[in-house]
Amino acid sequence: MAKKLIEIDFSQPPEAHDCIHNRWHPDIPMYAWVKPGDDFVLECMDWTGGQINNNNSADDVRDVDLTKVHYLSGPIGVDGAEPGDLLVVDILDIGTLEQFQWGFNGIFARENGGGFLTEHYPDARKSIWDFNGIYTSSRHVPGVNFAGIMHPGLIGCLPSRELLNEWNKREGALIATDPERVPPLAAPPCAGTAHMGQLKGDKAKAAALEGARTVPPREHGGNCDIKDLTKGSRVFFPVYVKGAGLSMGDLHFSQGDGEITFCGAIEMAGWIHIRVSIIKDGVAKYAVKNPIFKPSPLQPNYQNHLIFEGISVDESGKQHYLDAHVSYRQACLNAIEYLKKFGYTGAQAYSILGTAPVQGHISGIVDIPNVCATLFLPTEIFNFNIDPCAEGPTKYIKDNDDVPVSYWADK
Amino acid sequence: MAKKLIEIDFSQPPEAHDCIHNRWHPDIPMYAWVKPGDDFVLECMDWTGGQINNNNSADDVRDVDLTKVHYLSGPIGVDGAEPGDLLVVDILDIGTLEQFQWGFNGIFARENGGGFLTEHYPDARKSIWDFNGIYTSSRHVPGVNFAGIMHPGLIGCLPSRELLNEWNKREGALIATDPERVPPLAAPPCAGTAHMGQLKGDKAKAAALEGARTVPPREHGGNCDIKDLTKGSRVFFPVYVKGAGLSMGDLHFSQGDGEITFCGAIEMAGWIHIRVSIIKDGVAKYAVKNPIFKPSPLQPNYQNHLIFEGISVDESGKQHYLDAHVSYRQACLNAIEYLKKFGYTGAQAYSILGTAPVQGHISGIVDIPNVCATLFLPTEIFNFNIDPCAEGPTKYIKDNDDVPVSYWADK
Amino acid sequence: MAKKLIEIDFSQPPEAHDCIHNRWHPDIPMYAWVKPGDDFVLECMDWTGGQINNNNSADDVRDVDLTKVHYLSGPIGVDGAEPGDLLVVDILDIGTLEQFQWGFNGIFARENGGGFLTEHYPDARKSIWDFNGIYTSSRHVPGVNFAGIMHPGLIGCLPSRELLNEWNKREGALIATDPERVPPLAAPPCAGTAHMGQLKGDKAKAAALEGARTVPPREHGGNCDIKDLTKGSRVFFPVYVKGAGLSMGDLHFSQGDGEITFCGAIEMAGWIHIRVSIIKDGVAKYAVKNPIFKPSPLQPNYQNHLIFEGISVDESGKQHYLDAHVSYRQACLNAIEYLKKFGYTGAQAYSILGTAPVQGHISGIVDIPNVCATLFLPTEIFNFNIDPCAEGPTKYIKDNDDVPVSYWADK
Amino acid sequence: MAKKLIEIDFSQPPEAHDCIHNRWHPDIPMYAWVKPGDDFVLECMDWTGGQINNNNSADDVRDVDLTKVHYLSGPIGVDGAEPGDLLVVDILDIGTLEQFQWGFNGIFARENGGGFLTEHYPDARKSIWDFNGIYTSSRHVPGVNFAGIMHPGLIGCLPSRELLNEWNKREGALIATDPERVPPLAAPPCAGTAHMGQLKGDKAKAAALEGARTVPPREHGGNCDIKDLTKGSRVFFPVYVKGAGLSMGDLHFSQGDGEITFCGAIEMAGWIHIRVSIIKDGVAKYAVKNPIFKPSPLQPNYQNHLIFEGISVDESGKQHYLDAHVSYRQACLNAIEYLKKFGYTGAQAYSILGTAPVQGHISGIVDIPNVCATLFLPTEIFNFNIDPCAEGPTKYIKDNDDVPVSYWADK
Repeated sequence: MAKKLIEIDFSQPPEAHDCIHNRWHPDIPMYAWVKPGDDFVLECMDWTGGQINNNNSADDVRDVDLTKVHYLSGPIGVDGAEPGDLLVVDILDIGTLEQFQWGFNGIFARENGGGFLTEHYPDARKSIWDFNGIYTSSRHVPGVNFAGIMHPGLIGCLPSRELLNEWNKREGALIATDPERVPPLAAPPCAGTAHMGQLKGDKAKAAALEGARTVPPREHGGNCDIKDLTKGSRVFFPVYVKGAGLSMGDLHFSQGDGEITFCGAIEMAGWIHIRVSIIKDGVAKYAVKNPIFKPSPLQPNYQNHLIFEGISVDESGKQHYLDAHVSYRQACLNAIEYLKKFGYTGAQAYSILGTAPVQGHISGIVDIPNVCATLFLPTEIFNFNIDPCAEGPTKYIKDNDDVPVSYWADK
Repeated sequence: MAKKLIEIDFSQPPEAHDCIHNRWHPDIPMYAWVKPGDDFVLECMDWTGGQINNNNSADDVRDVDLTKVHYLSGPIGVDGAEPGDLLVVDILDIGTLEQFQWGFNGIFARENGGGFLTEHYPDARKSIWDFNGIYTSSRHVPGVNFAGIMHPGLIGCLPSRELLNEWNKREGALIATDPERVPPLAAPPCAGTAHMGQLKGDKAKAAALEGARTVPPREHGGNCDIKDLTKGSRVFFPVYVKGAGLSMGDLHFSQGDGEITFCGAIEMAGWIHIRVSIIKDGVAKYAVKNPIFKPSPLQPNYQNHLIFEGISVDESGKQHYLDAHVSYRQACLNAIEYLKKFGYTGAQAYSILGTAPVQGHISGIVDIPNVCATLFLPTEIFNFNIDPCAEGPTKYIKDNDDVPVSYWADK
Repeated sequence: MAKKLIEIDFSQPPEAHDCIHNRWHPDIPMYAWVKPGDDFVLECMDWTGGQINNNNSADDVRDVDLTKVHYLSGPIGVDGAEPGDLLVVDILDIGTLEQFQWGFNGIFARENGGGFLTEHYPDARKSIWDFNGIYTSSRHVPGVNFAGIMHPGLIGCLPSRELLNEWNKREGALIATDPERVPPLAAPPCAGTAHMGQLKGDKAKAAALEGARTVPPREHGGNCDIKDLTKGSRVFFPVYVKGAGLSMGDLHFSQGDGEITFCGAIEMAGWIHIRVSIIKDGVAKYAVKNPIFKPSPLQPNYQNHLIFEGISVDESGKQHYLDAHVSYRQACLNAIEYLKKFGYTGAQAYSILGTAPVQGHISGIVDIPNVCATLFLPTEIFNFNIDPCAEGPTKYIKDNDDVPVSYWADK
Repeated sequence: MAKKLIEIDFSQPPEAHDCIHNRWHPDIPMYAWVKPGDDFVLECMDWTGGQINNNNSADDVRDVDLTKVHYLSGPIGVDGAEPGDLLVVDILDIGTLEQFQWGFNGIFARENGGGFLTEHYPDARKSIWDFNGIYTSSRHVPGVNFAGIMHPGLIGCLPSRELLNEWNKREGALIATDPERVPPLAAPPCAGTAHMGQLKGDKAKAAALEGARTVPPREHGGNCDIKDLTKGSRVFFPVYVKGAGLSMGDLHFSQGDGEITFCGAIEMAGWIHIRVSIIKDGVAKYAVKNPIFKPSPLQPNYQNHLIFEGISVDESGKQHYLDAHVSYRQACLNAIEYLKKFGYTGAQAYSILGTAPVQGHISGIVDIPNVCATLFLPTEIFNFNIDPCAEGPTKYIKDNDDVPVSYWADK
């Protein structure tokens, strides 16, 4: 195994680690420096920093403090990297940790972040997924077993001060259009729970006041949650500060396109093995604004799908204008209703769409007023046949307990 | 070859054909009846009914009458099909016609429909694509050659009167929010250019006043423009009227996810060979709202991609809230800027994204305020290497003529 | 469609066509000439020239005259092609003919060619396969339906005189080791049934005496029966005579690796659309001895397989030394015995292995004394689940008639 | 991670381990017992038990003692498994060891086992392959980098006494046909270097006299060297003794079909994580003679190939009769000559074919007298373009040192 550049003490909280940070800010010092061509391993906490446990209660998902996330490992400085370069990152491998042979999928309470279908599934829920080598299955979601596509949900370089200012400005302007909204329109800086890595004292406090939250994907990559970014991929990141400052975390064992359950994929602690190199002045050479990447030759090859469609008419029958968000939600709801015919509860079906390698495509986006979004559900992940047939569906899932739920009111 | 149920006389306009219609209405009589288990062939005009020619002028694309489209072949009645059933359609094969070994891709003028990137490419443009067996290439877009995924852009069953009323009501309500908008928010009924198949006289006139335009995808399928719905696929359509009334058209030789150029894919005349059967009461059995389908084992297997990301921040830097439309537009624009580094004009790159089998994924849709949309561009379709490298891009495309353009002002 | 260079009158026998020949000889005149870069279409008879009919009797398979085959369309001369060049052939498309929407698979009688498993299946048998667009199924082999990989079983350039002499010499030497063997060790020239295209009279008679039979694959390609050589492929053929002289035929709708039933694949009449170009001096540049090729991006993507193994111990328990032939035969027999548990007869299972896109791999070939050969059987081609399970197999195929058989003794 | 059932002390020789054996014999006691449904991890030495080192000398490959191999971990007893059952083995994962981030590929000297092309490459050679996450590359074979398909080259259950007797009888009969041959026709029992696991003393000595060597694949599986048997696969093994007695080893990081270099693939030490279950009476239920298996959804998806053909005419021009061995050898030699045009030495090209995921197909096996064998070489594993083009090949590999060689004469 390559040199382990970051090692986590999982008996300690993330805040006890200088190799971890949970905000984006150019002043966070490089935790370690490497040279172009080096390969190395980083350990990562799960995105919540250990707030979620392997048990049958969703209380921890209900009560999670979302101002703390995501806990990232880094930043790593790369000798010679300068603003305007492209940092080439080969994701050579990703793995689980011996002591954490499980991950979690959660649906946040509507009052605490919610999820893509929060109007339909407003309560906090949790499913635990056991890892069996390349496969995963869950005691809370019977009848499915699939090979994961492990990937970092979050990876990117430190922003420059200018870029950080732009983020804060534009997101602040959005929040200002409806500042009392629950959930909020965006996640503004939140100094209280900021953990700035090696940056300490007054400098840390100052940076925390403006440090960008890690929630959204942005120009630098960040929380892209691209399920295909697995071991074997090569990513080209824009560099904004001297040394690049690469950080990553939010490892997923598997995720469906959209990460619709928000909490999200099958979330896990683990390690990632990468190699870095540099394309000098690559941003201008290739007109790169957001990261670009090449996928891996090694991804689960599920070929048999059922494809569900959704259009820009919402559940109430209201017509929207070319709204891909509404369309993809309809495709998801259609798939869930279909799966319920085989015995799943809605929350279980929702969890499947959040965790299994489903694809979400924008199939048609110009035919006014309806976007056609499609959800590709791999049928090979089920232990039974879910294809439509003349006889109608068989209720294979029987007497099953639902995904654990915790109600906000009980808090 | 199976029985040819619909044969087109391409020397005559679509309006001269009783086997063609361009509106959705329950009163349109079945042009022919078949039995469950039958397979048969339908010929189809291109979606514009022959308005576009194989030449180097974009005038026809600029001047196209969009109230006439789409010209569909059908409806076909299926014995025994009743509302609430699922009509199972096996797309056994799709082909080109000997006299039409070419297709077209157009970008509409902003004043006449526009396209996904109409703010950037506001003028009417056209590229002609020659068919070479399974491959296509264009004299207007050098350097690419790819295998098509032929599919019907538009296919579905006749709506019931209730469903038709619902469509008109909800789309009318949307239009009413901004009735003077150019382009309009939706396409309302337009009696003047309606062609109602075998329905004639006063009945046809009455139906034309309320017949739904074929532009958007809706519950019955319709203009879904799903690039993966190719020969070898099986589709399950909801049935709304006695006999189902299956119609189809808008054949594409190939299309990218989103059909972003609007006109759209590589549009073609051709034929389609299908088999039909019925799942009695399938709508309720499987909780089907929109059609569902199983893809074909036979699709071009391009595995090497460059993946571009886009987020919900528009070109002006403005932050939007979880707007997948904005995100996918950014991913497309990022890909276009990248391709320009290899010598393509923006319009050529735009055409490639509209025609080649690019995938558009909703990768992350819950990380406020940014959706992460990804565009998968297959690199094998290029005659040269477009991967990033340390030396920077080579301008392979030189001295090329751009895609033909016609200006609205010259009309 | 491209120019049709060779058109067959299927009401006439192959011998009535100057565009057809059934021997390899450098003196056969080019039937037509094309230029590098041209694309064109050739029609082809089935390999037997119409000896087999679409019915339920295997008499025609039993009685077929194998000295007549294969009937090839060509030769085509390419301007500028010279010995030592590589002829680049793009197989742009392959298709069936409207009047022949069926093909046949036969097992020859042991007394007339036999097949790979002739000791076990010594009688003549025939199954008819109907074409349904991209799919095929057979009234003689229930329970399977699959997408074909259409390809020319036989394609190559005319040999030079030197190469022809070498073929005759080496094959004659083999025959001489056991000249009375039935079946013979190789197929020597046979003047009586030779058809030499445009070559007539004494010249034809002289050439027929030494014209190479088309049965085996040789340096020029020829009867390679490579199931993957489908539309979308590019082949590089060595050129031996001025103009190259490209001929082809023996079209298959689908074939399993090995073409183990000998007659063989799903044999069909049809057409093939190709484009030709030249790499000057390519044989030396690339050290080409046998043709090389690049497969198509468009092939049925069956991913779920059951894999059967075979080793170099024959059915009697005798140990052979690194004999891949014996090993692959065992893998085939193992698969057949397995399929019989689901209700198939042995002959039906044998036909499936001959026609469906099964893969035959040489997995290990150095571990004395056993080669490990593997047969990959796609499970998706069956209408039922053939995976092993704890309950044991279900006999899905019931009361089925076997593949039609005709006994040699009844001849 | 699951329970580690077998742990190796790599500072000790294999003979110091009771959990290791290198012969097949029914009297070898189960090293450990598990229950159906259990999953567990086994560590494995490389097949030579540590005879080969990570350096630039091929002396160790030249001098290897082949009577010692293969060192297997096991046997594992499964409660309730009885003769006639099928043992279902899920290969959940396979991995490398932190201290062994490299593997080796060797070509044995002609005098010591040789290889598939020993007439052409008679000397001992070795290449070292470094592991970089999912990828591997070699300082001895420049220009290639590929994702491995890790698999156990050898896995199977203990034979019954009857089966063992049959092996010894039939292999002895083969050896008796040419007992002085070098290399021998098969590997007979060899008591001197036998290591019988927990079996000790006189019983071990007696068993060693008849214990089957591990070299060939046999009915029970054994040394199948099937490159596709990777993590995610499910195998069905015949059971011959009470408890089954599953053993495995000879782990490969990657291998080409045929394992033509004999030593062989990229050989490695590592661990394997499996789960076992039982199908009672499965051998009869499914007519299983040799193991059958289902491949993994997770295998490198290389789609672009160059395909080389070979026929049953050997290098001297001699015609053989339907000899797949000769044909595959020609396909390999053709590929090697091709690769030499890009600058590789023959030994380097040979090593690529032995290690990279090349496919070896039996394409046609009935067209007397030539078998057509095909070798599929994935082009994506090269750092440069190896497709043929009009300009001819570029010699990308320059001034490279060849694979280390050691001559027998220097021994």
